[in-house]
Order: sequence, then C-alpha cells, then structure tokens
Amino acid sequence: MTLLKPTLAISIILSTLAIAYADKDTELTKVPYPEGYRSWEHVKSMLIQSGHPYEDAFKGFHHIYADDKAMQGLKNGYYSEGARFVFDLLEAVEKDKTIQEGPRKLIAVMHKDTEKFSQTGGWGFEGFEGNSHITRIVSDGGNACFKCHTPMAEKGHVFSELRD
Amino acid sequence: MTLLKPTLAISIILSTLAIAYADKDTELTKVPYPEGYRSWEHVKSMLIQSGHPYEDAFKGFHHIYADDKAMQGLKNGYYSEGARFVFDLLEAVEKDKTIQEGPRKLIAVMHKDTEKFSQTGGWGFEGFEGNSHITRIVSDGGNACFKCHTPMAEKGHVFSELRD
Repeated sequence: MTLLKPTLAISIILSTLAIAYADKDTELTKVPYPEGYRSWEHVKSMLIQSGHPYEDAFKGFHHIYADDKAMQGLKNGYYSEGARFVFDLLEAVEKDKTIQEGPRKLIAVMHKDTEKFSQTGGWGFEGFEGNSHITRIVSDGGNACFKCHTPMAEKGHVFSELRD
Repeated sequence: MTLLKPTLAISIILSTLAIAYADKDTELTKVPYPEGYRSWEHVKSMLIQSGHPYEDAFKGFHHIYADDKAMQGLKNGYYSEGARFVFDLLEAVEKDKTIQEGPRKLIAVMHKDTEKFSQTGGWGFEGFEGNSHITRIVSDGGNACFKCHTPMAEKGHVFSELRD
C-alpha cells in the first residue's frame, strides 16, 4: 500500500469536499441537463432568419420537445412539478433549394420547480452550449428568459401550443 | 321489434359483407394509417423550397418520425417486420423573418412487411392527404416511391440517418 504524504492527502480530501459541495450546490439551485430529451414528444418547429429581433440568440432551426408532464400541461393548462420543455436550436444550412439542419448551437430548458425557481414564475431557465451537457449559458438566474415569457403567464409562461 | 322487409334485409347483409371484405382487403394489402406517430421519435427535419426538383410533391417543412423498430433499424441497419417511418409534410409560412409551420399537406409512410410488399423492397409506401386517416394518395403500389428509395438499398432503402 502506498502512503500519501499528509499534505497531499489533505489536498485530496479538500478537493473531494469542494467537488461534493459544488455538486450539491448544482443539484439544489440549477436546472439539470435534460437527459434523453430527443426521445420526448416533438411539439413544433420554426426557422428564425436574419433580421429577426432575436437572431443573435436564436437564428436557425429550432424544435420544441416536451416530456410527459409538459405534454399534460399543454393539454390541460397545468404544469406539475418537474415538467420540462427543451428548445433545441440547430444551425440552418441552405443547400440546393433546401434548408437543412446543421450543428447544434444550443439547447434551452424550462424546468418546473415552484419552490426552487420562485423568482422566475416557478420555472428554471437554463441553456447548454452546443452538444455540451455541462457548459451553461444562462448567467442571470433566468431573469431575461423569464421576462420574455411573462406575457404568457396565463398559459403557464409557455409559448408553445399543441398542434396535430 | 321492427321487422325489416326481406329486400332491405338482404341489402343490409350484402352491404355489411362488402364492407367486411373491403376491410379485409385493406388490411391484407395496404399500409395502415400510422396511429399515434406524433409521439414517435423525431429523427430530423428539413425545409424544401421553390425550385427544388420535388417541390410539387414535397415543398414545405417536413419532419421524419420513427417508431421503436425503425429507431432500432437506424441504429443497427436492420429493419424488423412492422418498422415504420412517417414523413410529415406541413406548409411553410413566412412571417416576420421566420418560417413557421402551416397546415399539414400530407403524411407519407414507409411500413416494413417483407412478404406483403415484396415488390417494393419489403417496404409498403403510402400517403395520406392532409389530416385524413383514410384518403390515400399513392396509386401505383408504391413503385415511384420505391424507385426514389432504391439508391439507398444498402441502408435498408432509408434516407434518414440518426443525429444527436
């Protein structure tokens, strides 16, 4: 058995504690990455083009996905705890009279947790860059996202509507 | 109890038999409408514009959906009996620097049944007009669809590929 020098051992212990604390902090206050969302129901899609007011953030193809709880909410207007939507933004690539999907730019997530996200309508707002599951984009606690969604308060702050 | 006149009774019996026979015929030789496909996995999307060689048939937004068996096939290259894809074509509506989904133009279906559709690569090809579950579009037994899919024979006659 190899014995560690005391300073190294203490360093490892402190690092481990720091990581554990960071994980706990993430778990308690942040929106988790929505694992498996590509298998959720596809609600709708849209293409945002150059000249649109939100082109800097959202130019490209986007698809909206809803998990089972979010689908229930779209049907009955009530979003239960844990309901999640994903806005999946891909580059739009023009080719031979088609517009095709390119690489992923980001995903944006809405995650319902009334207590944790009480400052933003009970929804946590987060973004993840490209295909990353860990590189977060939202730096203001979701305030800007929430502000944009506020006009939809009567529909649970959700823009999407069900279609056939 | 109301008694039917004999001629009316016979007419009803013959009509019932005709309907039963038609149903049996449909079941045996035609691609069924893919009930519930909007909850299947969304594989990819594309926009086909004016000037594209297939604009007459396919101009607009299309989304590809795969059932569980078709998803397996996309992963391992083997399509088991019953695997189904849907090509869901919606009008593309330009508005304020966006292109949005409009009404459904048609859905096209690929349905794997090696025996029933042996003349078209083991896939049945069918289309349903607009939101109809009964108004069929394909009138040549799927030959034109199959011809277009033939170059993809090595990939099970499927154009779509999995993406993240």
